[in-house]
Amino acid sequence: MKPSGIITLLTDFGLSDPYGAMMKGVILSINPNAHPVDISHQVRTGSIIQASGIILDAFPFFPKGTVHVGVVDPGVGGERRLLAIEANDHFFVGPDNGIFWPLIQKYRADRIVQLIETRYFLPHVTRTFHGRDVFAPVSAHISLGVGLEEMGPPLEDPIQADLPRPRLSEGLIQGQIVHVDHFGNLITNIGRKELEDLLGTSRPVIEVGALLIEGLSQTYGDAEEGQPLALINSSDMLEIAVNLGRASRYAGFDQEEIIGMVVTVGKG
Amino acid sequence: MKPSGIITLLTDFGLSDPYGAMMKGVILSINPNAHPVDISHQVRTGSIIQASGIILDAFPFFPKGTVHVGVVDPGVGGERRLLAIEANDHFFVGPDNGIFWPLIQKYRADRIVQLIETRYFLPHVTRTFHGRDVFAPVSAHISLGVGLEEMGPPLEDPIQADLPRPRLSEGLIQGQIVHVDHFGNLITNIGRKELEDLLGTSRPVIEVGALLIEGLSQTYGDAEEGQPLALINSSDMLEIAVNLGRASRYAGFDQEEIIGMVVTVGKG
Amino acid sequence: MKPSGIITLLTDFGLSDPYGAMMKGVILSINPNAHPVDISHQVRTGSIIQASGIILDAFPFFPKGTVHVGVVDPGVGGERRLLAIEANDHFFVGPDNGIFWPLIQKYRADRIVQLIETRYFLPHVTRTFHGRDVFAPVSAHISLGVGLEEMGPPLEDPIQADLPRPRLSEGLIQGQIVHVDHFGNLITNIGRKELEDLLGTSRPVIEVGALLIEGLSQTYGDAEEGQPLALINSSDMLEIAVNLGRASRYAGFDQEEIIGMVVTVGKG
Repeated sequence: MKPSGIITLLTDFGLSDPYGAMMKGVILSINPNAHPVDISHQVRTGSIIQASGIILDAFPFFPKGTVHVGVVDPGVGGERRLLAIEANDHFFVGPDNGIFWPLIQKYRADRIVQLIETRYFLPHVTRTFHGRDVFAPVSAHISLGVGLEEMGPPLEDPIQADLPRPRLSEGLIQGQIVHVDHFGNLITNIGRKELEDLLGTSRPVIEVGALLIEGLSQTYGDAEEGQPLALINSSDMLEIAVNLGRASRYAGFDQEEIIGMVVTVGKG
Repeated sequence: MKPSGIITLLTDFGLSDPYGAMMKGVILSINPNAHPVDISHQVRTGSIIQASGIILDAFPFFPKGTVHVGVVDPGVGGERRLLAIEANDHFFVGPDNGIFWPLIQKYRADRIVQLIETRYFLPHVTRTFHGRDVFAPVSAHISLGVGLEEMGPPLEDPIQADLPRPRLSEGLIQGQIVHVDHFGNLITNIGRKELEDLLGTSRPVIEVGALLIEGLSQTYGDAEEGQPLALINSSDMLEIAVNLGRASRYAGFDQEEIIGMVVTVGKG
Repeated sequence: MKPSGIITLLTDFGLSDPYGAMMKGVILSINPNAHPVDISHQVRTGSIIQASGIILDAFPFFPKGTVHVGVVDPGVGGERRLLAIEANDHFFVGPDNGIFWPLIQKYRADRIVQLIETRYFLPHVTRTFHGRDVFAPVSAHISLGVGLEEMGPPLEDPIQADLPRPRLSEGLIQGQIVHVDHFGNLITNIGRKELEDLLGTSRPVIEVGALLIEGLSQTYGDAEEGQPLALINSSDMLEIAVNLGRASRYAGFDQEEIIGMVVTVGKG
């Protein structure tokens, strides 16, 4: 596959420190024509699960041949392995800690290698910043056309970290809130297909905490200002929102405990 | 007009979610040579007025032929129309909700079209993310040289949303604070020209809340450390600041109520 | 030295306002092939010392010939001079307020000039935004190959602003915490070399507030979850961390007072 030259970065480094910029400097030192693009540097600290969801959601909008670097890496410098993946005409580079497992499950990987060829790393590799010292240079070399097979042997048993799946039973779907976005929208792990399989032509009844919503809206403005609604969002997931408001504050939810809250969908 | 290849993004999406990055992925998938540049993704949620002020302020510093995408779009997926504008040798793309009205008023538009030609959109357009599904691909096509006239019919009656204008009467200007910047500086809607028209050679006396400032400074350091001052800022607007401090905290202003506070200028 | 075309930006402008974007617009208007890269826009307001440390840390990861613009400039528009520097095959542009002094000390400058040739500035230079009106256009002209010697006369006496240095005495190093990073890690001003000179083959004993750490770890995972550790970080500085936690909250440190706290290292 021909690299696109684009290299995306997803990390939990924040935006105050120069860590993400150092990665870009390393990339541009190896491939001056690379185009680094930030996905986000504000993944919750150490949240492999949030990062794996964002990757799954965002990568298909980039050109084929893009290299996606994911660095949420609480085990940096320890026993965990380093990997690179080719899947669905994209490349992925990061720690072997499950961050790419949902991707592998959904798209099947054409190739997974353990990164051991140190000639594609920085000359000096620290124990605490593999994003800069390993993943950035590896991504730059991939963007130059180096094949994954030159970077290390096949890795057969990547670490598995499943996204929480909704449970289906007796005409009910029991899922959970997996993310609160910038607008206070509550993103669930219940997908369009599961809803359609459950509902057929029925209206759903959605329950989360003390909040009960009947029926699906098409967009935010379908509800009155300040009123809650549910819809299938632009990532094909069930989302609870408040028109011109913040769902995360609507029903007195505690923002700290909101991730993981149970969401139940039944037939109306 | 020849496109510059640069596409700026101004949204209220924040920086944690991958929404802005998805727009960049879509743009680069259509025009691999495009150069997306973030203006800001931290417009106050739904604040069309803040966004329209930032566009007006920032766009002239970009090369001619730049495409400026503005997505503060609380009515996404509803009745509101989609538009593209050519004005002052730049292009503008976004919802028809007034976000570009101050621009149209100041610079006159050479062309405004309603975006209806779906071949310039993503193949699947969701009801909740037109930034990614419509505005990003349209901006990329414009950056490739597609003319606005190919994208839809002229739009004659764009939604009007005026920036709050200062009132002039009896030797007084009554304006308001329209923005608090990162430094705590209070930006008013009173411009250099209005001040000069009022004052002639007189010194202004500026009143905001309990704060009284006499005369204009040239720069922050003209006041003692911690002391308030007023100046014409780099965007040619009257600004209240505190040297090496935060004006927004100076006089016990409530940050929540500070936007919209009355600022009065009279002759000294 | 051949410019790389890359121009890095380090400021205290934050990410909400369009100030950083205006700089990029100016740069791209002068050199359409320039590649602006953000180091950070979240330097603490007015903290020349934090900015100078970040520059020193980050610039070597960029290609030779990169222009680094540093705008933490509380004296903007006042008496302070404007300068450009060539050092270690990189270029640096910013106010003469000490922001580049640690760099000059460590790498020696091949050339320092006072920026006075206004033809490399924007046509209209405001008194309050030299980042946009002077430093951005100057950086763009340097990236196009304009020599520093064309921009102004040599500046012999740049303002000196030393980073706080650790004190060594009687087998002890007394340093301080100079930064708390996004992960809550406490970065000290004690470097690898000073530690090695002191310790030889001994184990260090590190004291900060009520916290006592014996020995150096290699990486975060060497400590139990939630336990504190000390290590030489990826920038070769002594760092206090908590495995899978935030050192800044570990011992009840007040985040407001943590910068400047004394860190003592002795032999175990």
